[in-house]
Amino acid sequence: MLNKAVTGLNSPPVSTVLNWKSSYSGGSGPLIDMSQAVPGYPAHESVLSALGSAAANPDLARYGPVEGEPAFRSAYAQHVSKFYDTSINPDEVQITSGCNQAFVAGVLAVAGEGDNILITRPCYFNHESALNMLGIKIKYIDCDKSNNLLPHSRAIEKAITNKTKAISLVTPNNPTGSIYPPQLLNSIYQLCEKNGLWLIVDETYRDFLPMKSTPPHSLFRHSNWQENLIQLYSFSKSYCLPGHRLGAVIAGSGVVKELSKIIDNIQICAPRFVQHALTPMFETLETWREQNRKIIQHRAKTFRNTIIKLKKWKLLSHGAYFGYVRHPFKDVGSQLVAEAMIKKSGVLVIPGTFFGDGQEQALRFAFANADQCAIKDLYERLENLEI
Amino acid sequence: MLNKAVTGLNSPPVSTVLNWKSSYSGGSGPLIDMSQAVPGYPAHESVLSALGSAAANPDLARYGPVEGEPAFRSAYAQHVSKFYDTSINPDEVQITSGCNQAFVAGVLAVAGEGDNILITRPCYFNHESALNMLGIKIKYIDCDKSNNLLPHSRAIEKAITNKTKAISLVTPNNPTGSIYPPQLLNSIYQLCEKNGLWLIVDETYRDFLPMKSTPPHSLFRHSNWQENLIQLYSFSKSYCLPGHRLGAVIAGSGVVKELSKIIDNIQICAPRFVQHALTPMFETLETWREQNRKIIQHRAKTFRNTIIKLKKWKLLSHGAYFGYVRHPFKDVGSQLVAEAMIKKSGVLVIPGTFFGDGQEQALRFAFANADQCAIKDLYERLENLEI
Repeated sequence: MLNKAVTGLNSPPVSTVLNWKSSYSGGSGPLIDMSQAVPGYPAHESVLSALGSAAANPDLARYGPVEGEPAFRSAYAQHVSKFYDTSINPDEVQITSGCNQAFVAGVLAVAGEGDNILITRPCYFNHESALNMLGIKIKYIDCDKSNNLLPHSRAIEKAITNKTKAISLVTPNNPTGSIYPPQLLNSIYQLCEKNGLWLIVDETYRDFLPMKSTPPHSLFRHSNWQENLIQLYSFSKSYCLPGHRLGAVIAGSGVVKELSKIIDNIQICAPRFVQHALTPMFETLETWREQNRKIIQHRAKTFRNTIIKLKKWKLLSHGAYFGYVRHPFKDVGSQLVAEAMIKKSGVLVIPGTFFGDGQEQALRFAFANADQCAIKDLYERLENLEI
Repeated sequence: MLNKAVTGLNSPPVSTVLNWKSSYSGGSGPLIDMSQAVPGYPAHESVLSALGSAAANPDLARYGPVEGEPAFRSAYAQHVSKFYDTSINPDEVQITSGCNQAFVAGVLAVAGEGDNILITRPCYFNHESALNMLGIKIKYIDCDKSNNLLPHSRAIEKAITNKTKAISLVTPNNPTGSIYPPQLLNSIYQLCEKNGLWLIVDETYRDFLPMKSTPPHSLFRHSNWQENLIQLYSFSKSYCLPGHRLGAVIAGSGVVKELSKIIDNIQICAPRFVQHALTPMFETLETWREQNRKIIQHRAKTFRNTIIKLKKWKLLSHGAYFGYVRHPFKDVGSQLVAEAMIKKSGVLVIPGTFFGDGQEQALRFAFANADQCAIKDLYERLENLEI
């Protein structure tokens, strides 16, 4: 009676994990929640105040343009142009209600029934489940454990079939934290160009890279990037607004025309008041974003130093927001380990198996959620953990 | 290079129509916009003030539960229980970001590749385009012009195939305004029960029915309604908040479990602050909603009286929010007529062809948008219109 493509999906993974919280009785100290990726600090007060005013404005409660508010699209185009040292037009911006929606719109724009899309594994669970839900076939590119969990472009090339429409990547990666070097992105882009494919790049975590002031890649410098590139972004992490649902796609104006049809069907338009409130913030919050970038980088360093001290655990990769860690319980699946971790040690993480097959030994830590003290506390809580 | 299921869709219809506004030079008086369905009065000030406070609250900027805020689901379940004289549980509610998203989630929950869904024609354009986009096949039930543009249940029964998963209806209807009598809804429900199908009912305009205090149908009184019924609703019209995107589905808790997977992929969660702000308003705004219902009913009457005075025009149907009208230009398609109407008379409506094949002679008037004076003015503007 129900659609098998949906009944076959797992329940929303984060909800499942958050439900485990109640199993912790508090014996090891305050619960350390490193599950869902959320900044461990609130939105800037100027944003909250602007949101308050905009939400009380009856004009912004009316329908708005499907593609997004013109002033917000312009401001975002200018911001992206500066960030990547390129020139993006406002009509190359589609505003969405969050980055999951940006992904759904992006893949629907390029792939239909019978087509396939290549994604790296471990993969962001909602990318995998959205493709399964939409009936778009997935071909997995397994990442290389000896190469900071990045894929090899040769492996990608090998996986391309005549039904492949796109290669979808996340950088900095969710769940591994790995940051794709510009050269690797460039060689994957060239693969796409050569094979007439789309490169869909989710850069939700780009504001938390180790280095400021160097563009993370030069993909937008290709003269015809509009023919092969679709870039996704979320305002949730950088502006601490996940509950307001705002994302964006950068794509050629012809692709934006198709995206707008999809967004019209799914959403009509993204909420307007939050676009209005954020319009000036690309400029006014530059220093604040830079401070947060440093905070998260500091947490990354502390996380690394803490995990490598653990005798039997192994840091597989880490980067902007996440660490991907091998747990020491060889014959125990990652879900059982994660359930034991929250119950016994009060540490909530997401099991590797939620990120695809073959991830039984891994756990994802969203270290950006937790402060220095909590991150250091992982040592004591995990070193003697028994299952 | 792009998905043909998307490139084959029309551009967002409302955007297309709104673009025609610039062709009007003002010669017949102020522009009368009866295109997109929007209430012609603002949100209640208590809602705007609650939205302002909630949007400035950093806690509500965090992620929330995929199914919706618990207090809001409870309040809505209670409201629906009262409205339909039935008993709905909070776990039978899925909150969405608007009613288009509710529709997408509803149809994806029940139909996949190769399945078909029956919709009435003329049809709400986004229902048609969403199904086409998702690769779900459509079977059209043409409405009967001699029966206030309602479908016959015999025609529906005849259209059912072994691939049919659902019958999707809108009542009060968009675009025709027609209100389905409870008996008709009941006989369609029984068809669904008999054939193991879902009845998907979009009741976005239910708060604008001619009669208060009588439930518009008794579908929720069936003992196992959870096995066959999925009901959609939008908060956009009744609370004047289309720009904030909020909708809801009522379905069995097992269906809600599947809907939550879909919403997680598309949206993660509906914006939270607006749910928070609206929670008490079902009760506190009961009188205000009732006043608005009367205003819209008054407009409906004025609209009817105005259109039937036009010598060569014919009112095909009208109801809660919309009137569906036959224009007098026999050899001219509805789009050309609509373009001439805005250019020459300053009246913006949506051409019939946007609501499916075979609608060349029809136009949709969203009379709820316009005040009494503007509605009366239609007589002068249309009576002598030449094309």
